[in-house]
Amino acid sequence: MTDRPALSRVRVVLVQASHPGNIGAAARAMKTMGLSSLWLVQPKSFPDAEASARASGATDVLEAAQVVSTLTEALQGVTLAAALTSRRRELSLPAQWSREAAQTLASRAEHGEEVALVFGNETYGLSNEDLRVCQLPVMIPANPAYSSLNLGAAVQVMSYEISMALATPAALPVYGEPLATVDEVEALMAHIERATTATGFFNPANPKRLMPRLRRMFGRIALERDEVNILRGMLNFFERPLPGSAASTIAAPTRDDGKA
Amino acid sequence: MTDRPALSRVRVVLVQASHPGNIGAAARAMKTMGLSSLWLVQPKSFPDAEASARASGATDVLEAAQVVSTLTEALQGVTLAAALTSRRRELSLPAQWSREAAQTLASRAEHGEEVALVFGNETYGLSNEDLRVCQLPVMIPANPAYSSLNLGAAVQVMSYEISMALATPAALPVYGEPLATVDEVEALMAHIERATTATGFFNPANPKRLMPRLRRMFGRIALERDEVNILRGMLNFFERPLPGSAASTIAAPTRDDGKA
Repeated sequence: MTDRPALSRVRVVLVQASHPGNIGAAARAMKTMGLSSLWLVQPKSFPDAEASARASGATDVLEAAQVVSTLTEALQGVTLAAALTSRRRELSLPAQWSREAAQTLASRAEHGEEVALVFGNETYGLSNEDLRVCQLPVMIPANPAYSSLNLGAAVQVMSYEISMALATPAALPVYGEPLATVDEVEALMAHIERATTATGFFNPANPKRLMPRLRRMFGRIALERDEVNILRGMLNFFERPLPGSAASTIAAPTRDDGKA
Repeated sequence: MTDRPALSRVRVVLVQASHPGNIGAAARAMKTMGLSSLWLVQPKSFPDAEASARASGATDVLEAAQVVSTLTEALQGVTLAAALTSRRRELSLPAQWSREAAQTLASRAEHGEEVALVFGNETYGLSNEDLRVCQLPVMIPANPAYSSLNLGAAVQVMSYEISMALATPAALPVYGEPLATVDEVEALMAHIERATTATGFFNPANPKRLMPRLRRMFGRIALERDEVNILRGMLNFFERPLPGSAASTIAAPTRDDGKA
């Protein structure tokens, strides 16, 4: 169980945690399973004496925690973000149960990738906006009549499953190509939105479900970095006036003037 | 996950729990996994407002809890008592790891037997005397440098494992969206080739690997029919002159003329 570098590539992200005690409990749960990278997005109160008390012997995890203001910041460099959710949502990506998801995350981390477990607020869970930047919805099988795990308990279960998955290594899927990180995929989504707004295909005032649908489509696979670059290159060309169009004919002399 | 009578034959026994909050957390952890039978041996304080608060929606489990003065009383009728312990002890019985132990307990419970998970005091664990009346020492694999799970968290992990062992795995919700047919995907590829050739991004005389790479990407996605339609709609708009560009300004009167 010692010396498993993949564990250092699994980060736990708590979004808008409202009870400092739960942050402490999460830190303790993580450390018992060998995890150490804790990210806090807009915690209600941190640092906090209650968090330190509940962390018990895991105050080092709390002290090293990174506090940021958006989930995207917490996912910098991450190629697979798993979002804990208690129910299926419309247009969401295919979900995995906790055990299967832990195996997915563990094998990616063993392959050298940065991965994340993302947990929402105690009362509201994750917002749809937060879910959109995650690639893998995860559900812990629970009593349908009472499925509300405490935040610290949910972190304990997932940390335990990750640790178990890394203890008995599953066969590794082979990824030949470097994957895009969450922030690179976000930049692609912003680029698509900009380019389709320019053509009038997308209307930001009446967005309908275009962007969620595209996120869901791309989210079903792990986009490679080269693929993101190809798509963005394609968009760059779509954003220019078409060659031979009136606009490009008129624009050309301007460019020549600039050179003169 | 509903209607699993074996779950009612798994009791959780907390011996000399000293923090009422942990008793509440244990009740909540149990209920999320469908367990309901809680036994308390000499709790320091029970009932207690802190226990009720931490139990959240599982106060029914607390209210039905049985308070007794010895572990033997709590194990009346039980044929297999598993004792959670964080270390191997001298002269102890052969231990099992949490997952294997949960399977053992689950299969006994499915067979109609009463079984128990026994947890010791937060600081001292179980006494040797308590261990002697249990038949199965159980360890949760943990970080050797910090193996101290919170009591509620340990109850959560074991309840989860028991529930997983008893689960007739529910199929994850299925997504009913119709997938695109091969010919629809081929038409999309042809559309992309046409549109990117028009912008100059794709050069048919020197195609490189653009189309094979896009095919590989869409192939991994398994495109739905609606997604193909969205992408083709987007391409249709990219193929028109940009609104507000010189080309569209010049073109506009033509369309007006057409209507007149």
